Amino acid sequence: MNPRILSSGIAADVQFGDEVTVVQPVNLYGCRIGHHSFIGPFTEIQRDSSIGDYCRIQSHTFICELVEIGDHCFVGHGVMFVNDLFSEGHPAHSKKELWKPTRVGHHVSIGSNATILPVAICDHCVIGAGAVVTKDITEPGVYAGNPARLIRPL
Amino acid sequence: MNPRILSSGIAADVQFGDEVTVVQPVNLYGCRIGHHSFIGPFTEIQRDSSIGDYCRIQSHTFICELVEIGDHCFVGHGVMFVNDLFSEGHPAHSKKELWKPTRVGHHVSIGSNATILPVAICDHCVIGAGAVVTKDITEPGVYAGNPARLIRPL
Amino acid sequence: MNPRILSSGIAADVQFGDEVTVVQPVNLYGCRIGHHSFIGPFTEIQRDSSIGDYCRIQSHTFICELVEIGDHCFVGHGVMFVNDLFSEGHPAHSKKELWKPTRVGHHVSIGSNATILPVAICDHCVIGAGAVVTKDITEPGVYAGNPARLIRPL
Repeated sequence: MNPRILSSGIAADVQFGDEVTVVQPVNLYGCRIGHHSFIGPFTEIQRDSSIGDYCRIQSHTFICELVEIGDHCFVGHGVMFVNDLFSEGHPAHSKKELWKPTRVGHHVSIGSNATILPVAICDHCVIGAGAVVTKDITEPGVYAGNPARLIRPL
Repeated sequence: MNPRILSSGIAADVQFGDEVTVVQPVNLYGCRIGHHSFIGPFTEIQRDSSIGDYCRIQSHTFICELVEIGDHCFVGHGVMFVNDLFSEGHPAHSKKELWKPTRVGHHVSIGSNATILPVAICDHCVIGAGAVVTKDITEPGVYAGNPARLIRPL
Repeated sequence: MNPRILSSGIAADVQFGDEVTVVQPVNLYGCRIGHHSFIGPFTEIQRDSSIGDYCRIQSHTFICELVEIGDHCFVGHGVMFVNDLFSEGHPAHSKKELWKPTRVGHHVSIGSNATILPVAICDHCVIGAGAVVTKDITEPGVYAGNPARLIRPL
């Protein structure tokens, strides 16, 4: 049996600001990328997500639906965002009302291999490499570990 | 000196069930993909591994040799399976008798950026995003952390 | 607005030793790859980094600038190296004097999904899958966890 083969790429419905750079291969669809931002290779950015101005989304990163990232943010390599907490013991599948949004403020820097559950992260935060962010972050600071905890204020 | 260049893709020896969808680019070879399953982009699935029916293998995930996944499973983004514990202090290389299998049951959901060492995971489990599963899981429940521990039964 | 589209690939300035194998797609530029080494798909290796002889760099791995890896090393899948500790509360951007190097010795094996901050790792070490290495490692052994700690000497 032959599978149905789809191809990654840049869908026609992606909204790009001015002076954006994208390094192929990527899988971008239905999202908004702000002015002067950079999208590295081997990334996927899903629909109904939004990246601000002057951001860098580095290689191997996955940004799911319902993620909103502010301006001047740096998202390292291999960072995974999550919108489904499997709250009923399994994926929400088509029950999108169970999906939860993530809002990342401005001037937030997220280290490589971090995992970001559906949370709000305030402006001027640093998330350490390999951290797993499971709760809202409301105070500027450096956060690291699994689960992520405040290491020092900024 | 010029390197030898190989190309990723879908090898002729992959066995697909009915109604499978694959999003390129992928690197699939010698594996079995069950009916109605979905394989996201930037994935690699190695030989002698098997994915059940109605599964989703999301982007950026790596499934190694000797992994068997049941039906109705969800494997999130950036999930890495492992078959070599470096038990002699280094990779087993060609001593494949040192490699260990992983068996994932049915209705198992694995969160993004999780790492799955060679273990058995029973039916109806949720593995949290960013978890590192180092031991067999024999009781349905939600497991998270590094190393993964039971958070609550299901 | 149309973005500027760049393409991943193997830049002309990569220095390859004899008998190297590369599986496309990759993004390699300005780096040195030693004799008999293997580079898996969906990898990025940046400029001013160096891989020794008889190494395997597995799929989905990112090796940043200023990383030097010795001979006979195994770097698993989805491993992320880091050179910028955001020491001023944000990325160093063009202030490269803030970037820090990583030196990995010979016969080092790094498990999948590990995160390696800018450190020195001595010869004959095993880094567990999913580990986050935050400090220099000066004693041969097996290290795991977040942050990585000595599990047993080798």
